[in-house]
Amino acid sequence: MAPVKNGRHLFNEIPTGYPAPGKTTIYDDSETIDLENVPLNSGFLIKTLVLSVDPYMRGRMRDPSIKSYAVRLCSTVSLIGYSVGKVLRSENSTFKPGDHVYGLLPFQEYVVAQDPKGYKLLENKEGLPWSVYVGVCGMPGQTAYYAWKEWSNAKKGEVAFVTAASGPVGSTVVQLAKGDGCKVIASAGSDEKVAFVSSIGADVAFNYKSVPTRKVLEKEGPINIYWDNVGGETLAAAIDAADVYARFIECGMISQYNTQDPYPLKNLTSIVSKQLQFYGFIVSSLHGKYGTQFYQELPRRVAAGEIKYQEDITHGLEKVGEAILDVMTGKNKGKKVILVADD
Amino acid sequence: MAPVKNGRHLFNEIPTGYPAPGKTTIYDDSETIDLENVPLNSGFLIKTLVLSVDPYMRGRMRDPSIKSYAVRLCSTVSLIGYSVGKVLRSENSTFKPGDHVYGLLPFQEYVVAQDPKGYKLLENKEGLPWSVYVGVCGMPGQTAYYAWKEWSNAKKGEVAFVTAASGPVGSTVVQLAKGDGCKVIASAGSDEKVAFVSSIGADVAFNYKSVPTRKVLEKEGPINIYWDNVGGETLAAAIDAADVYARFIECGMISQYNTQDPYPLKNLTSIVSKQLQFYGFIVSSLHGKYGTQFYQELPRRVAAGEIKYQEDITHGLEKVGEAILDVMTGKNKGKKVILVADD
Repeated sequence: MAPVKNGRHLFNEIPTGYPAPGKTTIYDDSETIDLENVPLNSGFLIKTLVLSVDPYMRGRMRDPSIKSYAVRLCSTVSLIGYSVGKVLRSENSTFKPGDHVYGLLPFQEYVVAQDPKGYKLLENKEGLPWSVYVGVCGMPGQTAYYAWKEWSNAKKGEVAFVTAASGPVGSTVVQLAKGDGCKVIASAGSDEKVAFVSSIGADVAFNYKSVPTRKVLEKEGPINIYWDNVGGETLAAAIDAADVYARFIECGMISQYNTQDPYPLKNLTSIVSKQLQFYGFIVSSLHGKYGTQFYQELPRRVAAGEIKYQEDITHGLEKVGEAILDVMTGKNKGKKVILVADD
Repeated sequence: MAPVKNGRHLFNEIPTGYPAPGKTTIYDDSETIDLENVPLNSGFLIKTLVLSVDPYMRGRMRDPSIKSYAVRLCSTVSLIGYSVGKVLRSENSTFKPGDHVYGLLPFQEYVVAQDPKGYKLLENKEGLPWSVYVGVCGMPGQTAYYAWKEWSNAKKGEVAFVTAASGPVGSTVVQLAKGDGCKVIASAGSDEKVAFVSSIGADVAFNYKSVPTRKVLEKEGPINIYWDNVGGETLAAAIDAADVYARFIECGMISQYNTQDPYPLKNLTSIVSKQLQFYGFIVSSLHGKYGTQFYQELPRRVAAGEIKYQEDITHGLEKVGEAILDVMTGKNKGKKVILVADD
């Protein structure tokens, strides 16, 4: 068989503000791959099916002077992200042709991988769409599940405030909080998103662009648990609305990722007087503790319709740049997924 | 016996910045008390020996619109603080004349107390000066001991950064951290204080007024534990110097208590990327868990010279206003104590 095109979405240059499609990242289809003969060197050949676009990716696109947990991208390489792929050929006993695997993959149509430890075999007995495994049953769902279990210390009747509540992390948190008997206040950035958040059980859902967060929290709080996906002004409002002993689960601060002018937080003294606890975390640190129970529980509950999710699907690897920008500006409606190829 | 003067130090008005002696608080000696005949109503009569002046007292002097853990003072009442007194008369079986008690007392020479639960009998088998029981063996020592045990999770060789390290809380933390095998970086506000901090074992002690904190942390860090007594710019520097998984014990933020213009913190996004944990607390919340072991351990270790302390003693109840201002500006050298009367 003749070599085929191996399209790639590449990181091109460090953005100063929001990532610009075609500038920060570029699509390249100049490479080809001979699927039957490409040497595997004891590895395995993966065909990418779905790619995940997530807020944390912005952290990879940074100047070398800024330290962070996320692997920094050097131009010009393929972007990297959570993906589901199908094994086409294998010289490794861990995976056989036809297996589906989940893990961090370069954003390209085909890749030869070497280390099987980096990938999880997806059995998918429930027959869920593969895209679900980069969303509610993948990294974002794990983020919600692990940290909620680890730090929420939720008690029935407590008030939880969840931001970016229509996204894959936030919407899972909303449902876990309801499951633990909390009253859930949830914010999102459009009336359509708010409708989804209400539909999955939030007691108070509001569009933060039309109703001031501070006003809602004053009326519906004080809050015992704050799930932070946004940071900035919303975090300040949550601190002011916090009850004594409130837990702040610091998952992300998307309002601060694309700005040169960080929000000046002035009320952190309340962390002492209100005895607040802030837990910053990255999902991978909790994987060892909760990973097994997550995969036992979530796919089953999602398949049963107990845990709901929403996806925003883009077709084609060339659209990754727009998808990243959508996620940074909140234009996406639910988990942003790139469908690269059919199964 | 004729009634005697019962001097009191009263709260007078809410300060806008630093408390002003004679304005924020005033000394009053217009009241008298008949020590032999004052009705006890099943309570006990206490003669105040030593009073403690602490940073948290500023929080009591606030506008009613500001919520806080600390009981707000209404003018014109006696100030309240941790004290050691001697029981002169008693109609309660818990305490007998001659007993020494520790607890929150109004800042006056004599007081009739009703509820024995509010006071701890001090046996003082070690024969320590009574002032020690409002310092390293009282609330400040408890603050250091309880929170260090609860949250430091100190491992040998880790780096701890302690602020206000010559004070009664900070200096105790320095010694606990050294005891756990940490490298201790410690800051204080004068060369004299720095000398004391070095003498009790800090590996790196510096005067933050003459050497930039940020520079010291860059050289001696990254830090694994931050003991925050000051907040503001120093907290920002500690966040930047924090290692992954660092613990921030948020004990106080004295740099923010007397200002109308809080420091604008702009780097809290690192709490996510570095997976930091922030623990705000008030000592009383941990008393049930650690109180007994504290009183078994600290007086013994202090008497043995294992735990060192420094006191800054003021004679006379009328000088409380100046003592409070000293503590707010850092003019005190070690634990600020008011000696009201001899035993």
